[in-house]
Formats: sequence, C-alpha cells, structure tokens
Amino acid sequence: MQTPEESILGIDFGGTKVALRVMHQDGTTRDQRLKIGVGEDAHSVIDRTLAAAVELGHNVAAAGISTPGIVHDERVDLAPNVVGWSDLSLTNRLRDGLGAREIVVENDVKAAALAEVREGELRGVDAGLYVNLGTGIAIAPIVAGAIVRGAHGAAGEIGYGVVGTVLDFSGKGAPLEEFAGGGGLTRRIRESGLGINDVESLVALSATNSEAATLWMSAIDEIARHLVTAALTIDPARIVLGGGMVRAGDALMVPLSERLVGALPYAPTIAVSAFGHDAALSGALMLANDRLTGR
Amino acid sequence: MQTPEESILGIDFGGTKVALRVMHQDGTTRDQRLKIGVGEDAHSVIDRTLAAAVELGHNVAAAGISTPGIVHDERVDLAPNVVGWSDLSLTNRLRDGLGAREIVVENDVKAAALAEVREGELRGVDAGLYVNLGTGIAIAPIVAGAIVRGAHGAAGEIGYGVVGTVLDFSGKGAPLEEFAGGGGLTRRIRESGLGINDVESLVALSATNSEAATLWMSAIDEIARHLVTAALTIDPARIVLGGGMVRAGDALMVPLSERLVGALPYAPTIAVSAFGHDAALSGALMLANDRLTGR
Repeated sequence: MQTPEESILGIDFGGTKVALRVMHQDGTTRDQRLKIGVGEDAHSVIDRTLAAAVELGHNVAAAGISTPGIVHDERVDLAPNVVGWSDLSLTNRLRDGLGAREIVVENDVKAAALAEVREGELRGVDAGLYVNLGTGIAIAPIVAGAIVRGAHGAAGEIGYGVVGTVLDFSGKGAPLEEFAGGGGLTRRIRESGLGINDVESLVALSATNSEAATLWMSAIDEIARHLVTAALTIDPARIVLGGGMVRAGDALMVPLSERLVGALPYAPTIAVSAFGHDAALSGALMLANDRLTGR
Repeated sequence: MQTPEESILGIDFGGTKVALRVMHQDGTTRDQRLKIGVGEDAHSVIDRTLAAAVELGHNVAAAGISTPGIVHDERVDLAPNVVGWSDLSLTNRLRDGLGAREIVVENDVKAAALAEVREGELRGVDAGLYVNLGTGIAIAPIVAGAIVRGAHGAAGEIGYGVVGTVLDFSGKGAPLEEFAGGGGLTRRIRESGLGINDVESLVALSATNSEAATLWMSAIDEIARHLVTAALTIDPARIVLGGGMVRAGDALMVPLSERLVGALPYAPTIAVSAFGHDAALSGALMLANDRLTGR
C-alpha cells in the first residue's frame, strides 16, 4: 500500500532521450525529458536521470524503468545504441540512486506492448504483434493475450534479422536495424548525397524526389519483409505500430500496410499505437503500480 | 472408453503420399502407405485412402487425421499441393467414410510438433520451434510449452514469406515454399541444366559440382533467413527439424545450424525430429487417443 504522500515514477530510456514521469496518488503527473548527447556514455546518462528524478519528486514508492535491450542483474544485453549501456548494472544503479522501495526494469518494447495490451490498441487481442520502429527495430508478440518473453527474454528482437541485400549470418551487429532503423537509415541518408540529414527530411523529400523515395521505400520493403515472416509465425489478428518512425504518418503506414495485407494469407487489422511516444513510459508506470498493488 | 475389440486410426495426408496406421489396444500397429499420383485429384486420393483404411482395420473408435493447410468445416485453406484439396470438406468426407465414432483433423505440421512436444525432441521445452522442411515449408512455434495456433489457425505458415531475390508482396503463391520447398526446389533442379531430377541427386552432386552446390545453398540460405526471423520472434531454447529435406543429413544440418547459431544473439540447441517421417502420423494418433481418453 502507498502511504498518502508517496508517488510512483516511470523512466523510459531511449536511444536518444530519457523520459521521466512521476504520478501522484490523485492521478496528477509531472513529466521531464532529457536529450542524450551524441557519444554521451551510460554513466553520465544515469547520473543526469537520477538528478532529474530527484528534482521531479521525492518519496517514490515504486519505480518502473524501461530500457532497450535484455535486462540481466549485472548487465543489459543487445543495447548497442548508448555507449557503455551493456556493461551497466542498470537495476542496481537505479535501486541505489532512486531510493524507491520497489523497482522493476523491463525491455522498452515489451513495456510499450504492455501499455497497448492493458489500455491501448491491443486490448482484448488474443494473438497480436506490437511493432517498434524507432532507433531500434523490435516487436513484442502477443500469444493468448500475453506478451511472449522467450527462452532468454529476447522474443521479438527482429532487428537482428538478415537483410535481403547482404546474406550475412555472422551475427555481427543487427542487420535489419542497421539498414532500416532510425540510426541506420539516418546514416544512409547522410551518405546519399541528397543534402539532407534526417528521416523527417527524407520523408518530406520523397514526395517529390525519386531518389529519396527509393531510399525511403528500401527501408519500408525490408521492414515489411521481416514483419511478414514474424506475422506468419504468430498469425496475429492485429498489428500495432509504435516508435519514432510512425511520425512519418501515411508515408509509412500506407505502403507498409499494403505490403502486410498483400502478403499475408489472413490479413490482420493494423493500427497506430494508442500511446504514441509515451507507450514505453506508460507501460513502465503500469509495472511500477503492479508492484504496489501485487498484481 | 474403447470397447475391447476397437482400434484407433491415424492418417497423414502429405503432398506426395498418404500414410495410415491402425493401433490396437495391445499397442500393436499396422501401417500402409499410398503414393499420390502426379496430378491425381483430391477425391481420388480420399477414395483410395478410405479403401486402404477399411482394408487395414475395422471398428475404428477414433481417427486422427493430419493434412497440409488450415482445416475448416467446409474447406482446407493454404493447401496448394494436391489438386482440389482446398475445396474439399475433408472432415465430413472422412467422418462419413470411416464410420469412426470420433474424428479429429489437424494441420500436419502442428500434428508433428505435438508428437515432438509430447514424446520427442521438444519434450519439456517452454519456448521452441518445430520446423517442417518438405514439400511444404512451415513451422510450429511453441510458447509456454504449447503449440501456437494464431488468430486463424495459421501460425507458423512461413512458406508464404517474401524471398530475398524478388520483393513480391502481392500474396500470389507461397514465395519461400516455391523457392526452397521440395516441390519448388525440384522444379529449379530440373530447369538447371544439371541433368538431374530430384533433391536427393542435387545433394549428392553438390559435394563435387560447384553449380549444384550453389543451387543447394541458395535454398538453405533462404530457409535460414526466414528461420532466423521466426526464431528472433519466439526466442526458442530449441529448434527441431523434420520433413523430407532432413533426409539430406549433414548436407542440410551443418550449414543450416551454422547460419542459425551464427545469426541469433541467443543460440538455441538444434536437433532432428525424433519421429522422422512418422511425426505427423504419430501426432494424429495421439489426437485420436485424446478424444477417447478425454484429454
């Protein structure tokens, strides 16, 4: 049970930003966002996050944390986007730093999927897919209404899939993510000679410039190919898309939906995340609240 | 309950053959196999199967049937390998023809996976994949120790995945199956000018002929690419391979295992089906027995 003055805290670590939200017992919230500097290392990110958390609220009964990667007690696997993140004992650092009674750390895509399953676009869905298209590319499969974790907590890490253009089974890097994820696509945009620097500009330019359109569609084609196989594996009734790339709107949703509906023998319904960029943060808060209520 | 003289019957319909097995209460069995003629239509296959069943045993208490495709009351979806199979009311035809008290019809890959889960190489496995590489290519994902069915009973139909060489999202045919499955690969072998006619000959020739080796590896590469994404989706502790292509032995298992273990961040163990070509038939018999015992 929470005592009257206690609050719960959610923290969502991303590849380029940290979002914090404190929620009081009356339901009121306060948010803060930090930008992660280019090349900023994990310890600096954690220190600034802890300072922001202290500033945001005190007497935290429970904290829910979402992070890229697979969380172990002493390290975080498969989290290449922030320097040093993999070598961090994230749970212990935050437990010590926050002084919260309860702390729960979850993979960001699974946290976002939880928010959609509990209160969003995957409510009541028995077989579904939550898809994150952002700095990272990963999915959360839903089977029997529950998020699939897998044998090592790594179910849904399709960013490690082998791309169509290069048959590389060496396990170096994350081929799909590096080709079509936010970071990899931005690199390809900068190397393209189109004179633009980010995905947003690419999407805008692709309406009028065929070279830009080809580059944008190369990402969508490759994402679609992997999502088709993931969807064939699960046979979902519904696919929900979240993550930063969803901000591209119809330029993403129309061609991606066409490809999925076209290729799948049983077409699922396709929707955009109900929580938007707040999905993982909202899921983290739900997990923190679960710890207090014993759910 | 079975009365003393009753038996159970299993029938496994494949793309090129039908296997039947009758099992008596003392555990003794009798088998029969029929070859499906090239171009033979579904009604002829059913008639010959019913005749073989009558010959094999009488007083069938329960029959378990395994078939390619997704079984509905009035038709079978996604079963392109026998002419007219899709338009057949398989369940009703067999119910009438066999005169069995109980009848259960299951997708062949799910039936094979059930045999492996209950008594084979997937016993005790919480997160796993059963993979069928034969005339058809499909998998059965195992989550929480149970076979995933999906929203339309079509979970695991990865034969419909989009191949690397042709980006076709039109939904025409089953691209992976047509490229790398037994039927599609045989077509490509006959068109290759290598002077051979079947997968067995290709495997033998690929030991000494680089053109044959390239053709064989093109199938393995494409199968591996799709299995990597399916495995990333489920994060299995174990992958079990069955179906006719497994007869290629090390020529299949060594390069395929290398690719899966190389590309997956958490490598599963990989094994060959314990039931071999009997997997689907054994699963069908288990399902028939379940009907009698109320499991």
